[in-house]
Amino acid sequence: MAVLRIDFGYDGTNFHGFARQAGLRTVQGALEDCLSRVLKQEVTTTGAGRTDTGVHARGQVVSFETDSVVDVERLGRSLNGMLGPELIVASVAIAPDDFNARFSAVWREYRYQILNRVLPDPLRRHVCWLVAESIDLGAMNAVAKDLSGQHDFASFCRLPQGGTTLRTVIEADWTEDQDLIVFRIRANSFCHQMVRSLVGFSIDVGRGRRKSDQITAVLDARDRAAASLLAPPHGLILWDVGYKNSPQSTVHGPQP
Amino acid sequence: MAVLRIDFGYDGTNFHGFARQAGLRTVQGALEDCLSRVLKQEVTTTGAGRTDTGVHARGQVVSFETDSVVDVERLGRSLNGMLGPELIVASVAIAPDDFNARFSAVWREYRYQILNRVLPDPLRRHVCWLVAESIDLGAMNAVAKDLSGQHDFASFCRLPQGGTTLRTVIEADWTEDQDLIVFRIRANSFCHQMVRSLVGFSIDVGRGRRKSDQITAVLDARDRAAASLLAPPHGLILWDVGYKNSPQSTVHGPQP
Repeated sequence: MAVLRIDFGYDGTNFHGFARQAGLRTVQGALEDCLSRVLKQEVTTTGAGRTDTGVHARGQVVSFETDSVVDVERLGRSLNGMLGPELIVASVAIAPDDFNARFSAVWREYRYQILNRVLPDPLRRHVCWLVAESIDLGAMNAVAKDLSGQHDFASFCRLPQGGTTLRTVIEADWTEDQDLIVFRIRANSFCHQMVRSLVGFSIDVGRGRRKSDQITAVLDARDRAAASLLAPPHGLILWDVGYKNSPQSTVHGPQP
Repeated sequence: MAVLRIDFGYDGTNFHGFARQAGLRTVQGALEDCLSRVLKQEVTTTGAGRTDTGVHARGQVVSFETDSVVDVERLGRSLNGMLGPELIVASVAIAPDDFNARFSAVWREYRYQILNRVLPDPLRRHVCWLVAESIDLGAMNAVAKDLSGQHDFASFCRLPQGGTTLRTVIEADWTEDQDLIVFRIRANSFCHQMVRSLVGFSIDVGRGRRKSDQITAVLDARDRAAASLLAPPHGLILWDVGYKNSPQSTVHGPQP
């Protein structure tokens, strides 16, 4: 038995999210089908982040157990031949026996991209949320600053399936480059729809519908109704996942 | 009779190029069909640049004559409702009687985007050409510098349909931002496949297969066989078109 780790990215536009679902084309389903075909055995993967329909990934990670002898380079090329260029595998590697893409992860980083201008951009429509109003980035960064540390994010989580909604945010900030505004957030883990919910609230602050200092009251409320609407999925990218002994995923690949 | 001008951009991925062709979905065909439906008369447009299949536009311009009384704001909204978000109209305006999107243009600017890294990026696969080898940007800029001014570009043109292949390049350069390398070229006009052919040659120089000082001999040869292979269409964007009394198109739209 060996544990394999796959680092990969995908355009989530035409997938019904990450998690396998009967009768729907999902990232995990497509990947497992290919793995099962190549390795001639049924493969069940565990993923670092369960992205929703329309959400993308640059640095997704899955792991699985296999008793096949695997040529990792060749498996990577086979997967890219079958799934690329919509999904691109950066590396396939033999991992330590106790490695699990979900439970071994020490942090996840997501980015959320906003196009801040009046007109949509046909070339970026699948990867940015268009916000046409002017935005106060300073106020949004004040919110981001208050997210740091451990908080109960119940107000920003969809139906917690039991378990805690305590999460530790390691870093969060907003930056801008011309008409592109990017939210980066790194945390030990995220509950369901947490990033999109935080972006929805932050943009309401940015466009003056709420005040940045309300973030504390919203967190304290532990009530989803206290937050704002969800930002749409297509601006969201699972950017990177960190592990104890390999702090950076390799999905961006080596430079030439 | 009034002359109307439309400024717009599009994702060329799912169009068979700009020019109307019977039985194929093209940009001009889709636009004319919508205009004819809204204005209740057959509309024939003239475009500033004839982009090939897979080529995009940020700042395309068309003009047409109409004897309808047109509410330009409303026509713009109708077109975006029918064609967006794949094609987005930035403005519809009544133009001077002698305006013609093609013949009144004094320059066109194209950009060509290259992703210079080992692995494809699923999120940028429709708008960049992947070049995995390392690239000498200085050598490519030496070529760009030699393109300035008036030259006979026959070596870089597909079958000139009669007429001259003399063109005047106003500006050309290569810039890089992380793994993205961009070629900008502005000229009075371009012959067919000229930008993709220049990019093909420049990249051959960048990866050391040809020398930058060969550009003069290739231009002098006036023979397509002297150039290099064409760069693929999906990295190319018709960026902007200049007119005497409106030097900048409005397709990028006002900032919020």
